[in-house]
Amino acid sequence: MIRLYDFWESGNAYKVRLLLSQLRIPFERVDIDILKGETRTASYLRKNPNHRVPLVEWPDGKTLAESNAILFYFAQDSRYLPDDPWLRAQALQWMFFEQYSHEPCIAVVRFWHFSGQLEKNRQFLADNMEQGYHALSVMDAHLSDRLFFVGDSYSIADISLYAYTHVAEEGGFDLSRFAAVKDWLDRVRQQAGHILITDRVGAAVGF
Amino acid sequence: MIRLYDFWESGNAYKVRLLLSQLRIPFERVDIDILKGETRTASYLRKNPNHRVPLVEWPDGKTLAESNAILFYFAQDSRYLPDDPWLRAQALQWMFFEQYSHEPCIAVVRFWHFSGQLEKNRQFLADNMEQGYHALSVMDAHLSDRLFFVGDSYSIADISLYAYTHVAEEGGFDLSRFAAVKDWLDRVRQQAGHILITDRVGAAVGF
Repeated sequence: MIRLYDFWESGNAYKVRLLLSQLRIPFERVDIDILKGETRTASYLRKNPNHRVPLVEWPDGKTLAESNAILFYFAQDSRYLPDDPWLRAQALQWMFFEQYSHEPCIAVVRFWHFSGQLEKNRQFLADNMEQGYHALSVMDAHLSDRLFFVGDSYSIADISLYAYTHVAEEGGFDLSRFAAVKDWLDRVRQQAGHILITDRVGAAVGF
Repeated sequence: MIRLYDFWESGNAYKVRLLLSQLRIPFERVDIDILKGETRTASYLRKNPNHRVPLVEWPDGKTLAESNAILFYFAQDSRYLPDDPWLRAQALQWMFFEQYSHEPCIAVVRFWHFSGQLEKNRQFLADNMEQGYHALSVMDAHLSDRLFFVGDSYSIADISLYAYTHVAEEGGFDLSRFAAVKDWLDRVRQQAGHILITDRVGAAVGF
């Protein structure tokens, strides 16, 4: 069985839990507490030298890091990633947008809140909020005449962007001005096999 | 003919120029001067609401943003991207690493240097340098027993990471301690059809 190195509160890790659940792929789960520095232990660094979760490990020791690369790997040959080369490129466009222009603002501000690091980072807050709101406005404009990010069906581009958008309010972002985003969040939640970020899935194993 | 919205000094844009040259795909080139704010004009924002280069535009008006999504699109069905699903996922792993853990440190510090914004950002320099050196050390360890990032041949994962690594010294990074990275830079330069970041390719057109 595959093993997911995971942290419940991480949206990047939640992306993988969500897709594996929708694909009905069973997995063992190893809890890696970022707040306790568990991504920086010698034993974890041997698995992922870039000290992040999520990480997927196969029984033969192979590993794959980077949440969006993991989504792409498991979604190939499934309904969650179109075969068409143009649609695949569009899905990747939105997933790179997510990691470069969305996650570093929206996820990071939420992290400051729940990790108690908001005061320490107060000087950066205005810039991060502004950039986060810009990312949300780009999403809202794109979704104004579409049901999903790519083509006309739910894909890993939606999973990728849903992960931190649906909890953006935990970082103080006001989603009420983004009507198309809010409607899209509802559509994502209605997909077959959807799980919440708080759903405790996967068989727990030690490390 | 396709049109590339481009900025000579951008490593992200150079990735696309390099791959298009190696694939012998002709393109028109529109110069977008980031330093003059040309990614934020109303006419450019209609093409790319996320105000960045590179952007590729087709004669029918279709556009594709995000350098690594553009690489993936053009490399499909070429020698520069393996067909194998596992190797594709590994290529994407390194390309997401590049956009999340490498470019925001190494490219950004170089940008501060050449745009005259180093003093303004002096307070962030130590953190960015530390994170940039960490990314280089992850690359160096991976390359210690490999010729290229994925499988045994040159791919878009190499193009992606080459773009800002080979000019990292312009941002003050000392590459002399990364012997495997330096050997790999040489191997990338020796690939058929390689062009330099300073090579002036593409037929210039106005906008």
